[in-house]
Amino acid sequence: MRRLTVVLVMVLACAWPALAADPLPSWNDGNARTAILSFVARVTTHGGPAFVPPAERIAVFDNDGTLWGEQPMYFQAFFVFDRIKALAPQHPEWKDKEPFASVLKGDVKSALAGGEHALLEMAMATHAGTTTEEFERIVGDWIATAKHPKTGRLYTEMVYQPMLELLAYLRANGFKTFIVSGGGIEFMRPWAERVYGIPPEQVIGSSIKTKYEVRNGKPALVRLPEINFIDDKEGKPVGIQQHIGRRPIAAFGNSDGDFQMLEWTTAGAGPRLAVIVHHDDAARETAYDRESSIGRLARGLDEAGPRGWVIVSMKQDWRRVFSEPPAKQ
Amino acid sequence: MRRLTVVLVMVLACAWPALAADPLPSWNDGNARTAILSFVARVTTHGGPAFVPPAERIAVFDNDGTLWGEQPMYFQAFFVFDRIKALAPQHPEWKDKEPFASVLKGDVKSALAGGEHALLEMAMATHAGTTTEEFERIVGDWIATAKHPKTGRLYTEMVYQPMLELLAYLRANGFKTFIVSGGGIEFMRPWAERVYGIPPEQVIGSSIKTKYEVRNGKPALVRLPEINFIDDKEGKPVGIQQHIGRRPIAAFGNSDGDFQMLEWTTAGAGPRLAVIVHHDDAARETAYDRESSIGRLARGLDEAGPRGWVIVSMKQDWRRVFSEPPAKQ
Repeated sequence: MRRLTVVLVMVLACAWPALAADPLPSWNDGNARTAILSFVARVTTHGGPAFVPPAERIAVFDNDGTLWGEQPMYFQAFFVFDRIKALAPQHPEWKDKEPFASVLKGDVKSALAGGEHALLEMAMATHAGTTTEEFERIVGDWIATAKHPKTGRLYTEMVYQPMLELLAYLRANGFKTFIVSGGGIEFMRPWAERVYGIPPEQVIGSSIKTKYEVRNGKPALVRLPEINFIDDKEGKPVGIQQHIGRRPIAAFGNSDGDFQMLEWTTAGAGPRLAVIVHHDDAARETAYDRESSIGRLARGLDEAGPRGWVIVSMKQDWRRVFSEPPAKQ
Repeated sequence: MRRLTVVLVMVLACAWPALAADPLPSWNDGNARTAILSFVARVTTHGGPAFVPPAERIAVFDNDGTLWGEQPMYFQAFFVFDRIKALAPQHPEWKDKEPFASVLKGDVKSALAGGEHALLEMAMATHAGTTTEEFERIVGDWIATAKHPKTGRLYTEMVYQPMLELLAYLRANGFKTFIVSGGGIEFMRPWAERVYGIPPEQVIGSSIKTKYEVRNGKPALVRLPEINFIDDKEGKPVGIQQHIGRRPIAAFGNSDGDFQMLEWTTAGAGPRLAVIVHHDDAARETAYDRESSIGRLARGLDEAGPRGWVIVSMKQDWRRVFSEPPAKQ
């Protein structure tokens, strides 16, 4: 009978991995952690009044500022600048053309003086013109080597450890986890599976159009300098419907760009969870909200209370922010 | 020890369901069946030269003519006609306006004289103007009751039994199955999970634009009379990239509208499977290919051989076409 017991224990351990240990070791005890654990317990309790079948356990996560950092500017902007430098020999006209000229001079501030429009123009000029496979390779090479200007760490090391635990915890409880980001969909897909455990088909983001072409018998999808979709603000519920086709029951964001996603998620019937990550930890990361041009959070702070949304204080609720740096080799 | 044996057998049976019995009982022995079984065996053999990790086992299926029928016209067209009749009281102008007037007179042939353009105009006029949730309810009500004009069966009973077995067989072998159809994405999603086992987030199709609105504090996605995406021909690889973000290893279609999807799938490295369902069974279904205005198949027939694509003869390869009608109650 002992072997039978061993087999049964193994079977049970596989079936209920969430029982194994503390699933959120980087979260301090507090309202945020309690709200998350209680929500998951309620929707996974068979026969309970709030039970949600696994197929409907859809959780959506913003990326910039929610799963990884976004200061001093969106990490994709650093990629855009590096692409401008790499492509400059093929574009001699950029030397005299803003915002490209400022980037080439190393003057980021002037390059970004044109705001989102300037960033979009640069993204378009550097993200189009390749095939989807070439672009995937370019992103993969960059993300494997580029370093954050302040911490000197790889960008994929600037993901929030508590959020990685949360993603894994939700999946262990039958949730399907999606990214719903204003960032470029093809900028995130090449590394989202390795870093977050989120496969390409569960990444939703902004995109440019592509065109199917057969050249010399070889088919390719060519990336065009034309906006296809902006996955931000009112666009987030639209992107969710396009890709997922059902309303999430849990949503996680950090800025007012996520407001509509949280609003759409929590307007559904039954149990709902909306969480805003508040960047209030100047010591371990960066403190910003109402006045920030990147990741501005004002309406979310004002309305979270009355709407029953959970505010996560990075300072209070997170035992650690980033994972430990890997030991030097 | 006997109980241990029982437990182990149960564990093994759950882990390898494909071993249990004939996974494709409605398929006759022949080249098509052999090609499918051999492909699946190769990509799932651990350590073998053609092994594909489960995450990359993406299989895409056209819907009309591949998973369910499409004669005497696309089933969604019957839905469009029924919507025109239902909405006619709110649109008195339709009585004198083609193609709506012909539909209201019951003259389908004249209504469709304008070809795809006329169908698109009618789809737009009847599919927009509701919220996504209202539209889902309308489709759900229709699909639960509307009957095919020739067979008198529900449309969801006109799915191909051999293809249902194939979907289940692939999933049992670690494949993720997607629909990639020229039909409306929101027309398929309300019933695709129940009928095919394919969840909404794995349905790709043509779509109209939606707009996020908050009316009296209640958010909704409103459907607009404006094309968002046509998921046909060159659009299929584009839709696959947008939604899935990686190239499938297996693709199933029936018409030249699927050609590019099969071409894109088979142009990837490693083992690939492309299958065309050939409607050559006039006795049990409908025989059509090169000359048909719906589901035209010419280039696919010509090039399948040299490209190594598999042609399924419905007449030869399928033991049965549809599932048995349910017993009368």
